[in-house]
Amino acid sequence: MKTRAAVAWKAGQPLTIEEVDLAGPRAGEVLVEVKATGICHTDYYTLSGADPEGAFPAILGHEGAGVVLEVGAGVTTLKPGDHVIPLYTPECRQCKFCLSRKTNLCQAIRSTQGRGLMPDGTSRFSLNGEPLLHYMGTSTFSNHIVVPEIALAKIREDAPFDKVCYIGCGVTTGVGAVVFTAKVEAGANVVVFGLGGIGLNVIQGAKMVGADKIIGVDINPARQELARQFGMTHFINPNEVENVVDTIIQLTDGGTDYSFECIGNTKVMRQALECCHKGWGQSIIIGVAEAGAEISTRPFQLVTGRVWKGSAFGGARGRTDVPKIVDWYMDGKLNIDSLITHKLRLDQINEGFDLMKRGESIRSVVIF
Amino acid sequence: MKTRAAVAWKAGQPLTIEEVDLAGPRAGEVLVEVKATGICHTDYYTLSGADPEGAFPAILGHEGAGVVLEVGAGVTTLKPGDHVIPLYTPECRQCKFCLSRKTNLCQAIRSTQGRGLMPDGTSRFSLNGEPLLHYMGTSTFSNHIVVPEIALAKIREDAPFDKVCYIGCGVTTGVGAVVFTAKVEAGANVVVFGLGGIGLNVIQGAKMVGADKIIGVDINPARQELARQFGMTHFINPNEVENVVDTIIQLTDGGTDYSFECIGNTKVMRQALECCHKGWGQSIIIGVAEAGAEISTRPFQLVTGRVWKGSAFGGARGRTDVPKIVDWYMDGKLNIDSLITHKLRLDQINEGFDLMKRGESIRSVVIF
Repeated sequence: MKTRAAVAWKAGQPLTIEEVDLAGPRAGEVLVEVKATGICHTDYYTLSGADPEGAFPAILGHEGAGVVLEVGAGVTTLKPGDHVIPLYTPECRQCKFCLSRKTNLCQAIRSTQGRGLMPDGTSRFSLNGEPLLHYMGTSTFSNHIVVPEIALAKIREDAPFDKVCYIGCGVTTGVGAVVFTAKVEAGANVVVFGLGGIGLNVIQGAKMVGADKIIGVDINPARQELARQFGMTHFINPNEVENVVDTIIQLTDGGTDYSFECIGNTKVMRQALECCHKGWGQSIIIGVAEAGAEISTRPFQLVTGRVWKGSAFGGARGRTDVPKIVDWYMDGKLNIDSLITHKLRLDQINEGFDLMKRGESIRSVVIF
Repeated sequence: MKTRAAVAWKAGQPLTIEEVDLAGPRAGEVLVEVKATGICHTDYYTLSGADPEGAFPAILGHEGAGVVLEVGAGVTTLKPGDHVIPLYTPECRQCKFCLSRKTNLCQAIRSTQGRGLMPDGTSRFSLNGEPLLHYMGTSTFSNHIVVPEIALAKIREDAPFDKVCYIGCGVTTGVGAVVFTAKVEAGANVVVFGLGGIGLNVIQGAKMVGADKIIGVDINPARQELARQFGMTHFINPNEVENVVDTIIQLTDGGTDYSFECIGNTKVMRQALECCHKGWGQSIIIGVAEAGAEISTRPFQLVTGRVWKGSAFGGARGRTDVPKIVDWYMDGKLNIDSLITHKLRLDQINEGFDLMKRGESIRSVVIF
């Protein structure tokens, strides 16, 4: 079939809208009509050329929601008409990782996904007979996509696509880091470094589970107002205090119970660890650092009880946990609407990237 | 009263045996006759002058066992005749740390203990009218000591002092890191870097809880035989393989579930983290690094699910858990006898340090 997609031809160049060819679903695969997709910083990271694993030409996008149109042979858990969120972290429920009960990082299709291909090693996208690469196993900048069954979360049908698409990445990454990775408990103190889309979702996750102090740290004072709406109780501008770590330690009577780094800055990652409470404070790295950058600290920080860990896709198992997060949104426990600051048509997608680069949007969503 | 003690007058100098004065126990304090004490690397670290917090003159020693002779006012949990192990990590059961349920690092008397003093800010030791400092709140190189009630674990009376003194530090540090900090589960793979006294205790802790592969890493091949007796299943000499991390990853089908650094080398700490399994591998730092040294890694190691943490006194709560470890020894679950390679009189204590420096002893014990 033909479908409309934004194609990334080369690093650093704007996307172009093309009528591309999409082959139908093979065994274990599903054809999905994407109804809406967010534009995430990771798409920009790859498009910019900074991503060492980025490959072109490709159809980017990994934060979508849509409807199943057709299922391939052997697909048993989905049928045409089902509403779904594509998963860049699939959940096969059969690999060593899924069965470990300790991680969400299903590895069933990782090697082909990393090369922009379907599990059988081929692409379903092409243009003028030349294959186009998939991206993160999702490629939600295309109006229609083919994805493996294990990479689709089935969600309730009353959930609006133009909102819950954001659960495909940003919401889950932030809220999940609180709920699934850190398992923050009611009454805990939480510090969030970086009040962009991820940081705001960490804040509302912390609020949802009943955290006590929720301290936001950002050099941009304009972030303060929205963050307070989402549950931030204290704001620290690193440019206005002598020492961020000491300020947090004082504010939390010895250090925070949990901290979250949502920027990708290795210096901030160190601060996020060192502002944790002796004995039990946990620091969770969410932000993606530039290639080659390293974190460091004195081992004494860990020997005295602090824990350094990370979170990918919020520690959420895609098929199991994403539908729960959709429920939390539908039940009013999470606010997505205020985070979606811009709605665009597919042919305006480059504008979405510009809004992000200029820091004017929290999240732009493309409606097909 | 008078008692015999080995006094450290100055960094880098041998201890001298002195008849020192010991004041009786004040409120909340207990007089203990030390029956046996281990000589631990931490005593040497302080004596050498490398410990930035080391202060002199002091009575070192922190790995003892003995009998209560007298209790001060208000002491309710101990009475004369009770067998005890002095605790450099006390357990007050009242401070924020004890009540957190998340750490063993009781802070009730930390500031005075760190300055070599009793909780009221004075010393019980003196010689010719000049005060001598306590050390780690224990000073087990003295035949008699006064320690706070909260820094004594009451143990069973049939446990031999010359063996269970080692539970006052080394055994608990190693076994506890497995049982209390990492909570290693049956069937897990474990890697231990450094096969000295701590490493061997990590190995027997891992064996006790039913670990599968127990891999020891040491540049000294002479350690291999004893480590195998304690439960090591595989040995790696870093000088005999191209890449330690890759070797471990291959041996464990993707990485170890738990690793323990028992050396204090920050480069090895990085290897210990990076040989952990993606998704869930945990690395526990036990070794004490030289002042100012830093650990580092790429944050990607954590974002993909590895966890970096540390362990002090094996994560054991002194009064609660040390008696359990004594039981495990008495029940034959732990072997201490083979680790105590030398027994000395107090006037031979400097010989014990020499044996340690030359790597000839696992543990020397002084019998009073």
